[in-house]
Amino acid sequence: MESRKIMKNYKMAVAYDGTRYKGWQSQKHTEETIQGKIENVLTKLAGHPVEVAGSGRTDAGVHALGQIANFHMEGNHSCEEILTYLNKYLPEDIGVQELKEVSSRFHSRLSAVAKTYRYRIHVGELKEIFERKYVYTHREYLNVTAMKEAASYLEGIHDFTSFSGNRHKKKSAIRNLYGIQIEEKGQEIRIYYRGDGFLHNMVRIMTGTLLEVGEGKQSPKEMLRILDAKDRGVAGKTAPSQGLALLEVEYENQ
Amino acid sequence: MESRKIMKNYKMAVAYDGTRYKGWQSQKHTEETIQGKIENVLTKLAGHPVEVAGSGRTDAGVHALGQIANFHMEGNHSCEEILTYLNKYLPEDIGVQELKEVSSRFHSRLSAVAKTYRYRIHVGELKEIFERKYVYTHREYLNVTAMKEAASYLEGIHDFTSFSGNRHKKKSAIRNLYGIQIEEKGQEIRIYYRGDGFLHNMVRIMTGTLLEVGEGKQSPKEMLRILDAKDRGVAGKTAPSQGLALLEVEYENQ
Repeated sequence: MESRKIMKNYKMAVAYDGTRYKGWQSQKHTEETIQGKIENVLTKLAGHPVEVAGSGRTDAGVHALGQIANFHMEGNHSCEEILTYLNKYLPEDIGVQELKEVSSRFHSRLSAVAKTYRYRIHVGELKEIFERKYVYTHREYLNVTAMKEAASYLEGIHDFTSFSGNRHKKKSAIRNLYGIQIEEKGQEIRIYYRGDGFLHNMVRIMTGTLLEVGEGKQSPKEMLRILDAKDRGVAGKTAPSQGLALLEVEYENQ
Repeated sequence: MESRKIMKNYKMAVAYDGTRYKGWQSQKHTEETIQGKIENVLTKLAGHPVEVAGSGRTDAGVHALGQIANFHMEGNHSCEEILTYLNKYLPEDIGVQELKEVSSRFHSRLSAVAKTYRYRIHVGELKEIFERKYVYTHREYLNVTAMKEAASYLEGIHDFTSFSGNRHKKKSAIRNLYGIQIEEKGQEIRIYYRGDGFLHNMVRIMTGTLLEVGEGKQSPKEMLRILDAKDRGVAGKTAPSQGLALLEVEYENQ
């Protein structure tokens, strides 16, 4: 009879430049996902298949500064060994920032209580050269005061169906959007979204809608009508993925 | 008889991510240089061959935030038209920040009175993900106090033969290095070099030598012996190109 091996549960913080990936996870293209890359390296180290669970999927082209993931693995490797091994064999655009052993009950997605996303908009005629893969460039002026007012109507508990790219309507689209912060920094506008969870494409559709308000195409109060409509067709365009990054995932007892 | 066309002289500030180029200029690979890319676009606009003169060559892989160049061109295009045309047809990693008409006597290299380069070093075990193409990563601790002392011996008027990658020894290697500033910012060390001119690879060799001081392999006072030796063999390694950027070129009456 085979001896029973002890499986440990590890939690890690991952940063990645999502430019050349099909997203955190993809059923069709596991080889070209961030999760797939990490699983390959861990499976090599562990000698048994390792599954990595992320706090949520990020779309193709979306970045992360602090994606949280966990995995169960056998063996007596120290956390430092696993961290060093991962950073050595992962490609240069994926890095593990932190790794620690956690309770077997911890799950990166189910245990999460809040997530923060950031969307970066570069405003101006001149091309942004060095940050070009991490910002969305908008040539014309944006009315940030109007965008802030519009954002305030989106905060709180709402049915966000109008801001969801998901066609499966069976699950609840009610989310608690704790807050939206909009900062201007030189030629850049940064929008921070913090909430208990986000629907598919929700941050990008909210950003695309706020951009229309900034351009003067929608009045800030229109947000109330768009929420009420529960119809994806009435919200703005889905803003490009490159400006978006998952900043932070929060858990209880932190 | 052909009518005489008026040639105007234009000065421009250029920013580029040098990662995928053979440098600002290269006799062998004009197609893969920044100068070559700009000349192609201007020649198309002007309808006659346009030569672009940079304030100096940057090596393969070196970046620029404010490279200055000038060119002579016929026609009645406004500066705004030329700037917009350039930014439209140049690749996404080259951008023209500013363009104006100047006196026919202005020459970006000959008229320059000072240049500033910046070298970025990321210190730490963890990989730098988003700035990875613009920093050199050094895993071990660096003694910045010792590096600052060493840098002070390099400032001023010296024969910099020991810090030159150029094998042609006929030309003078005497330069006035106005100052070296070393800043620590989080996990990053930034070294700023301002001088009246720099020999081939001079900034990268000075950086490589300062790194050896930071690692404790050389004492700061060794800089005096290295300068005196006038021998490339006694200085440190040439630091990698990716950490280097040409920040600013200064002219009189600015």
